[in-house]
Amino acid sequence: MPKQPFAQLPAPPYHAVIFSSLRTAGDPGYEQMAERMVELATAQPGFLGAESVRGADGFGITVSYWASEAAIRAWREQAEHRIAQESGRARWYEHYEIRIARVERAYGKPPGLDDQALPG
Amino acid sequence: MPKQPFAQLPAPPYHAVIFSSLRTAGDPGYEQMAERMVELATAQPGFLGAESVRGADGFGITVSYWASEAAIRAWREQAEHRIAQESGRARWYEHYEIRIARVERAYGKPPGLDDQALPG
Repeated sequence: MPKQPFAQLPAPPYHAVIFSSLRTAGDPGYEQMAERMVELATAQPGFLGAESVRGADGFGITVSYWASEAAIRAWREQAEHRIAQESGRARWYEHYEIRIARVERAYGKPPGLDDQALPG
Repeated sequence: MPKQPFAQLPAPPYHAVIFSSLRTAGDPGYEQMAERMVELATAQPGFLGAESVRGADGFGITVSYWASEAAIRAWREQAEHRIAQESGRARWYEHYEIRIARVERAYGKPPGLDDQALPG
């Protein structure tokens, strides 16, 4: 976990990639791959931020936030290419689910950049 | 973590509540409150499923999935009411962010109920 685990985001709307995964046993280079993926995302135009957590049992959720669907597509193409070079996700994950969403409202405590009064 | 950490969801579109939080130190009844919240959500019309993970450092992400925005609003009203009775979120969380989103595409491995070919 980074020192500041919360992403600092602009006001909605923006887009989210919700990645849930169950790690395979063992660690054939996983940490290095994960680090490269974070570097790659951070350098990508339209990347807004990410939040990530993995439990001791191997189940984890990473949510990355993006300015547009086009930015997600561009990121995905690069990431898929890299992952293919690394012999594929099958090596790292027993199971994963990816859900691509448009964030419409956001609020929190303490009040942040993306806070707004809730309409209802 | 439940035995099956992945939510079994229908095909998109559906809605998501992404809840990121940093727990306060100590545990003044947190587990009981969290259990009641899960029971309350599960019993709510329009609840589709949820995925949740918290790291040893206290940072966690829970994503709950809903059939409609109206279902989220109804759930939220009930949950807020209960949490207020329990003396408020301030007691449980040092910091939290809630992002409400519309899921537009989903895919995974192994293929699940919500899988579909990606358009792009």
